[in-house]
Amino acid sequence: MTTAYETLMAYVRDTEALGQVAGRLGWDQETVMPDGALDQRAEEHGAMAGVLHARRTSPVIAEGLAAVQTTDPVALAQLHHIRRSHDRATKVPASLAGAIARETSRAHRIWAQARAEEDVAAFLPALSRVLDLKREEAQAIAGGADPYDAMLDDFEPGATGAQLTAMFGAMRPRLVALRDRVRQAPPAPQLQGTFPEDGQMALTRELAAAFGYDLNRGRIDKAVHPFSSGSGLDVRITTRTSADDPFNCFYSTIHEVGHACYEQNIDRAYLLTPLGAGVSMGVHESQSRIYENQLGRSRAFTGWLYGRMRDTFGDVGIASEDDFHACVNRIGDGFIRTEADEVQYNLHVLLRFDLERALVSSDLAVADLEGAWNERFVRDFGFSVDRPSHGVLQDVHWSEGLFGYFPTYSLGNVYAGCLHAALRDAVPDLDADLARGDTSRATGWLRDSVQRHGGLHAPRDVIAQAAGGAPTEGPLLDYLEQKFGAIYGV
Amino acid sequence: MTTAYETLMAYVRDTEALGQVAGRLGWDQETVMPDGALDQRAEEHGAMAGVLHARRTSPVIAEGLAAVQTTDPVALAQLHHIRRSHDRATKVPASLAGAIARETSRAHRIWAQARAEEDVAAFLPALSRVLDLKREEAQAIAGGADPYDAMLDDFEPGATGAQLTAMFGAMRPRLVALRDRVRQAPPAPQLQGTFPEDGQMALTRELAAAFGYDLNRGRIDKAVHPFSSGSGLDVRITTRTSADDPFNCFYSTIHEVGHACYEQNIDRAYLLTPLGAGVSMGVHESQSRIYENQLGRSRAFTGWLYGRMRDTFGDVGIASEDDFHACVNRIGDGFIRTEADEVQYNLHVLLRFDLERALVSSDLAVADLEGAWNERFVRDFGFSVDRPSHGVLQDVHWSEGLFGYFPTYSLGNVYAGCLHAALRDAVPDLDADLARGDTSRATGWLRDSVQRHGGLHAPRDVIAQAAGGAPTEGPLLDYLEQKFGAIYGV
Repeated sequence: MTTAYETLMAYVRDTEALGQVAGRLGWDQETVMPDGALDQRAEEHGAMAGVLHARRTSPVIAEGLAAVQTTDPVALAQLHHIRRSHDRATKVPASLAGAIARETSRAHRIWAQARAEEDVAAFLPALSRVLDLKREEAQAIAGGADPYDAMLDDFEPGATGAQLTAMFGAMRPRLVALRDRVRQAPPAPQLQGTFPEDGQMALTRELAAAFGYDLNRGRIDKAVHPFSSGSGLDVRITTRTSADDPFNCFYSTIHEVGHACYEQNIDRAYLLTPLGAGVSMGVHESQSRIYENQLGRSRAFTGWLYGRMRDTFGDVGIASEDDFHACVNRIGDGFIRTEADEVQYNLHVLLRFDLERALVSSDLAVADLEGAWNERFVRDFGFSVDRPSHGVLQDVHWSEGLFGYFPTYSLGNVYAGCLHAALRDAVPDLDADLARGDTSRATGWLRDSVQRHGGLHAPRDVIAQAAGGAPTEGPLLDYLEQKFGAIYGV
Repeated sequence: MTTAYETLMAYVRDTEALGQVAGRLGWDQETVMPDGALDQRAEEHGAMAGVLHARRTSPVIAEGLAAVQTTDPVALAQLHHIRRSHDRATKVPASLAGAIARETSRAHRIWAQARAEEDVAAFLPALSRVLDLKREEAQAIAGGADPYDAMLDDFEPGATGAQLTAMFGAMRPRLVALRDRVRQAPPAPQLQGTFPEDGQMALTRELAAAFGYDLNRGRIDKAVHPFSSGSGLDVRITTRTSADDPFNCFYSTIHEVGHACYEQNIDRAYLLTPLGAGVSMGVHESQSRIYENQLGRSRAFTGWLYGRMRDTFGDVGIASEDDFHACVNRIGDGFIRTEADEVQYNLHVLLRFDLERALVSSDLAVADLEGAWNERFVRDFGFSVDRPSHGVLQDVHWSEGLFGYFPTYSLGNVYAGCLHAALRDAVPDLDADLARGDTSRATGWLRDSVQRHGGLHAPRDVIAQAAGGAPTEGPLLDYLEQKFGAIYGV
């Protein structure tokens, strides 16, 4: 290891530490910040962003990259990430980055108001400006290549729109067909009872611990939206409680615990380096979704949870473990992606992916977006959007310029499907553990196969190594058809 | 106003915003940080300190200062602070600053262990190293001038050791004499009863609001040590509860509210500029102490508090408002500065001031410190130190290199005495308000006379303008003799 490498890494380590500080500002804002601090907080965010951008584009990085000579695979992986971040930051002119920051901040406010007022037309001009700026940014990064791929690369390095189109195209008919079959079956039972907040929070802490979240290096707070924040030794999650829907609290916690455990379980040697964080949004989502769904919503684990819920809340209006499993996995009509069940969730994502790809390529005009959304929705879901806040205005992403983000949700589900199949092969008697509320062999396998590597391998590679083959949509679809076929008898 | 000024101020404003972010890391660490995050947090602190130091010594500052031409008094005051901070940061070599950071961090750990083990000898070598480094730093800043004055200037710009020696020399005999008289009188009554934590926290929030703390731009959390953190729109305080001593909670809250209101009430035009923070530790302490003591422990206000405590906790074992006032202002023997009453508090400070000044000038050897402490203590307090943790090892300050900090506590009390006399002249019927728990005319006068100016005037000047004359120790001593003479009949 050369001195040039150590010098470069010391600089990068400080930048990563500053990145953690900047990220924690976001946690603070969503959990504990006084309302009246908002204007000052914007200045603080801006100042931190300026510091981080200056460091990522610093000549120290370019000189370090030029000077380092190494064949060490970990060092090479670090350099790959450092170069990637430096290239990206230097290719985007400061004036464009500033314009994007201003326009997305503005568009976010306009979107929130337009959604509250069910006024699509009020949002579209702002969306057009954001789209134009993000396209310009993608062209600055990608040159003549497909700008959508450059956007996607921000969230899922190496993925392409063409590859995802093929994968999602294979998923859609099987998902629509499964949804159609389930819709014709009798509905699953629903919870009854009262679920006091302190009981929800006590059980949600128990669930977090059961899935391996280390509260000595994390904490659980309440926030409007559940999220996971931070890397390394300080990874915090949030949850929320809803008086008549304890599953909202429990499963959003398990989901965020999946994200948080990924960050907590990365090799300690990578702390505060580019390898010390989850490698992509898709791989991140694979961890949150396998914790939440393949493990947390399994027949075996829900059998244990059924007992813990009755211990905590008394009668919950469900007669058996099988009924409870069906209840946890209940499928119903709904407009909202974030509230969707395992089967329909991906249909929500696929719709957004196709529309945003068409927006970026200009195959779809912004003016025609709502119509395209509503037409696609009725085709895939079998009923019509009743208002914009249930349709094209429901998600925050586009207002913030996050084109290329949506598909990583479904890619994460596909990855989770592959990992789950491999996990079941590796631990054939896993259900005996899960039925006792013991996830340790499952989460231990994920830690050793995926999480500990952090950013060492490319996203597809880490999944392929863990799953024993290139990721495909097959295992996810097989799992969904088997699971929901059994629950609904279809 | 020239463009050069605006350019400079934009740079400085970002630095101030980053300073707020760095300060909030400290708040986070003391209130919500998971224990296991400590190692990472040290890296984050270090990275933020590096960024701030680089900005304070940046050529942007030197060039800006050279280019700006202005006669505007506010701009001149900003430039004064910018120049002062830049001069100080550039005069201290990076290697020395680094050595101080490392040695104080190390000495702090050694001190904590030495205090736990009552082992003075284990701490003295570390103290010697810190003292040598801080002396070297003071010489780098002050050149041939008295190094103690350079240290003091860090906390109380413009104050000198000689000036404080004269002031404190005049205070000491009158304080010792008052303490002697009170010690011979029958003791004040003590609280009886139980004081559940939720009642303490509810009443402490009511007290914070009663003293004008704006919770829309702040928050109250629990921490091991009470403190106030932040400036501008996000000023947070902490408190603590002790089952049998609710006054600890209430009066530490009122004290921190004094600090916090100073920061909250600074002219909004100074937000995130060098004028947007309290001008010195002494002026800061004058606000916390006048809130806590001259107002919060007054006969009128404690009459109101007596009723609120009985509403909250039932019988508190005190028969009358007069007895309650005596109870709140109870004087007793004690070793610990932070637990001392109004009379003896300054004797604790004066002892430390004389000893640290002698240490810095080398008139006192580190090896002789404990003996000097114990000898002085028995002379001023009338009884002997029984163990090092009750004597020379009780405070954290010296281990952290904070020489010159202690005297600002007593200077703050002196300032509070001057302000209180002027306030009583300005609002002769103030007690009628305080007896209703209404501090608005008192805190409003302090806001308008002192707090709103932030860093606009030099510390002594802002007190002199508010009090109508140069600050002296007389009003504080008159107030103490009158108040405790009445309570104890001496």
